[in-house]
Amino acid sequence: MYEGPVQDLIDELGRLPGIGPKSAQRIAFHLLTVEPADIDRLTSALGRVRDGVTYCEECGTVSDADRCRICSDPRRDRTRICVVEEPKDVPAVERTREYKGLYHVLGGALNPIAGVGPDHLRIRELLARIGGGSEDEEVAEVIIATDPNTEGEATATYLVRMLRDFPGLAVSRLASGLPMGSDIEYADEMTLGRALSGRRTL
Amino acid sequence: MYEGPVQDLIDELGRLPGIGPKSAQRIAFHLLTVEPADIDRLTSALGRVRDGVTYCEECGTVSDADRCRICSDPRRDRTRICVVEEPKDVPAVERTREYKGLYHVLGGALNPIAGVGPDHLRIRELLARIGGGSEDEEVAEVIIATDPNTEGEATATYLVRMLRDFPGLAVSRLASGLPMGSDIEYADEMTLGRALSGRRTL
Repeated sequence: MYEGPVQDLIDELGRLPGIGPKSAQRIAFHLLTVEPADIDRLTSALGRVRDGVTYCEECGTVSDADRCRICSDPRRDRTRICVVEEPKDVPAVERTREYKGLYHVLGGALNPIAGVGPDHLRIRELLARIGGGSEDEEVAEVIIATDPNTEGEATATYLVRMLRDFPGLAVSRLASGLPMGSDIEYADEMTLGRALSGRRTL
Repeated sequence: MYEGPVQDLIDELGRLPGIGPKSAQRIAFHLLTVEPADIDRLTSALGRVRDGVTYCEECGTVSDADRCRICSDPRRDRTRICVVEEPKDVPAVERTREYKGLYHVLGGALNPIAGVGPDHLRIRELLARIGGGSEDEEVAEVIIATDPNTEGEATATYLVRMLRDFPGLAVSRLASGLPMGSDIEYADEMTLGRALSGRRTL
């Protein structure tokens, strides 16, 4: 619809997830009005991500250094590991302020149709962490926080089977049920079914 | 919440209009998974817009060449000019497929509070176009398509006054009223008032 660089920018922005043609147009025309330095900061941030980000050697989340801030924080409880699919799940759990342990990022979930098997995920690294702790830092609990969908459930089931080999290790899974603040009337049957089967005695 | 380049990218993306922290995070993690060439195309498009886009000498919309595709299209009706505020309004009118004339981009709307007066808009250029056409291309109609808000209305009123000096020139304004597919019940009083005062005899 437009010509030249503006249309190219609209096209490229429109390829990003969650950005439709209208938003892409709005952003492009906004960028026509900003200082060149503002665009420079954006392109420089893009360039640094393009050149590769580094991952924590221990938990696998995105990190500036060899070990991320959480793994190198002496105040964290090293006997607990929360297993998540992606780096973006770490700040989601952190925001609850309910968890003081460590994390382990799998790098995805089992998905046979898409060709993602156990060897594609950081499962071997997880087992090594559980088996390799020194005596006073032995892992006592693994909380499986994969997504509550088909792939995440399959991954959780697989992990539970692998973790049976560690006697004394507590393995738990995040509760499924009705989201807080929601309406039973509008809950889908899967969620309501989970809320029923996971009901707590009061 | 994250570290290093990923957080920088999330911060920069979050500065764009319509992109909240969640979308910025989603886009940043998406960009971690794409080919470097995809990021290169985006940064290159940003760079070209940063280095300046060119505008059509005639109508003032963004353009690759000295004259945009619409102004240089011999099939367009050169006796009609649709006056819009911004380049992004041109494709909006084009999508209706109802208009075959030319455009004139003002580059904004009158806004005394923000210090935007008539001299800041391309009004002089509009008057020159109307007065300067050769005999067989004389402008016969100006359609004022500024936004139906305070600034757009003030701009329209100002333009109508200026255009009175051209005898025989038809000057019109886009109709205001209820949007198609909307509910009278939910219409704001301004819109409903306009729909009433602009009612058509059937």
